[in-house]
Amino acid sequence: MLTKEDIAAWFQHLQDHICQELEKADTVARFQEDTWQREGGGGGRSRIIAEGHIIEKGGVNFSAVYGPTPEKILEALQLDKADFYATGVSIVMHPQNPMVPIIHMNVRYFEMSNGTQWFGGGIDLTPHYVDLEDAQFFHQQLKNVCDRHHPSYYERFKQWADDYFYIKHRKETRGIGGIFFDRLTPGENMSKSQLFSFVQDVGKNFAPIYTYLMEKNKVIPFGTPEKKWQLIRRGRYAEFNLVLDKGTKFGLDTEGRIESILMSLPPLASWHYNYQPEPGSRESYTLQYLQKGIDWLSATDAAM
Amino acid sequence: MLTKEDIAAWFQHLQDHICQELEKADTVARFQEDTWQREGGGGGRSRIIAEGHIIEKGGVNFSAVYGPTPEKILEALQLDKADFYATGVSIVMHPQNPMVPIIHMNVRYFEMSNGTQWFGGGIDLTPHYVDLEDAQFFHQQLKNVCDRHHPSYYERFKQWADDYFYIKHRKETRGIGGIFFDRLTPGENMSKSQLFSFVQDVGKNFAPIYTYLMEKNKVIPFGTPEKKWQLIRRGRYAEFNLVLDKGTKFGLDTEGRIESILMSLPPLASWHYNYQPEPGSRESYTLQYLQKGIDWLSATDAAM
Repeated sequence: MLTKEDIAAWFQHLQDHICQELEKADTVARFQEDTWQREGGGGGRSRIIAEGHIIEKGGVNFSAVYGPTPEKILEALQLDKADFYATGVSIVMHPQNPMVPIIHMNVRYFEMSNGTQWFGGGIDLTPHYVDLEDAQFFHQQLKNVCDRHHPSYYERFKQWADDYFYIKHRKETRGIGGIFFDRLTPGENMSKSQLFSFVQDVGKNFAPIYTYLMEKNKVIPFGTPEKKWQLIRRGRYAEFNLVLDKGTKFGLDTEGRIESILMSLPPLASWHYNYQPEPGSRESYTLQYLQKGIDWLSATDAAM
Repeated sequence: MLTKEDIAAWFQHLQDHICQELEKADTVARFQEDTWQREGGGGGRSRIIAEGHIIEKGGVNFSAVYGPTPEKILEALQLDKADFYATGVSIVMHPQNPMVPIIHMNVRYFEMSNGTQWFGGGIDLTPHYVDLEDAQFFHQQLKNVCDRHHPSYYERFKQWADDYFYIKHRKETRGIGGIFFDRLTPGENMSKSQLFSFVQDVGKNFAPIYTYLMEKNKVIPFGTPEKKWQLIRRGRYAEFNLVLDKGTKFGLDTEGRIESILMSLPPLASWHYNYQPEPGSRESYTLQYLQKGIDWLSATDAAM
């Protein structure tokens, strides 16, 4: 029997593994660890990296929190009173070089005393500058993971990411998406251990995917215009996380540890009034790709 | 009879007046104007100032929008279908010098075809560094305005600002508050024109109050540590506006013009993980004042 404690323990190992791999790839920065207790029950282990060779600011957070389900969550899920247990790993990396993309991953397990159990998670990429080769690589890796578990996963979860990471008020996606899935419940077609095996596969693939993109792009030169654009894109990232992200909202609603929840915010971001990149620029090239429904596996410039 | 058009026309004059006074005080920057139409009805006139001698980025926006009340608003107000008309002036100023405070003002009028009418608004101040003399001056000016209209206004609206401009997840106020009021409905005690006269008085006092604070503080020297702190405080400002501010939420829910709504966001902001200022520093002195319920009219260092 796969228990919530088994899942939490594996997530902790995943956190260790990912931190090691990111430190190796960054070569300079080292994670700082903070452990914390949650008043209602449980706690977490936040690991923060800053001012690295490649990573400007990032976090790899583990938590396992439990207790009576907060009213706001019960209301949102339309559930009766019950205890909950939630465990997961959350990652956001903001690189120094604008040519290296921002990445986010989350894997999580949620269960309630009324028998509810589900897995959720995903990985999505936010390049400051879209590169079709990288986008294809990224989506192909995610498709490979998905295909090992269910033939429909990639298509479903890719679309879910397009819909989820959409900044409605800007009418643009946060980045080039990836996969997103929530409330995957054990049932006839997929057992709990099969679902967990999928989530584990997602988690294990984070480090190889991102360290490849770090290595490949860290050497690309950049200057003031690229830094300016990076700060604008980070502003959009902050907008998404503060206005729309359900994980952030869940954290604030359950009175989670604020510094761990908001580690996702960029080290520096900017907002210009009505900023419009030059037509034909690389910035405006990127904007045309921040849309839902792009088939990244076969995207070529000619297709746009 | 005071009509919605009269009120909107006066708000437009107020926008002109305030822009003139701010340009005079800044000496360098000039407002750029964008007019816009709202698809459902109405529109606005956004005025943006940037890279001034004193103001780094700011906006003085007028709008008058109307049409069928959006579903989300009807739900939030628990109202039946009706048309709405909303007009107002909204201001946020982010100064260059961290010794000059951020300021926000809003005055607004809302009416519905079912007979609902109300005024709302307020002014609040967000110093990067709290200065008790300035805080006392600011609150005294607001009290003077309030006292001319109702003996209980200052106390009520000062507390309302404390409660409204509270960043729950940080357990701190956005700044030193000011006054905030909403849904002031004409009735037995206050006629519509009396309420409007109060709102006008608030609006007219914005420019003298803020230009005084600009002039007084623009000459105070600052360096890298003060700039760093300013960016952190601006990060909190962005958090408040994106997570909690009802005006921003109303704008996003009514599909208002996004660039006008988000002009309140800072030109540059930063987030450091778990940043704690040195005990005894001016930064930590400021933090101890970011609390509700402080009597600024008689605040002295000894009182803390």
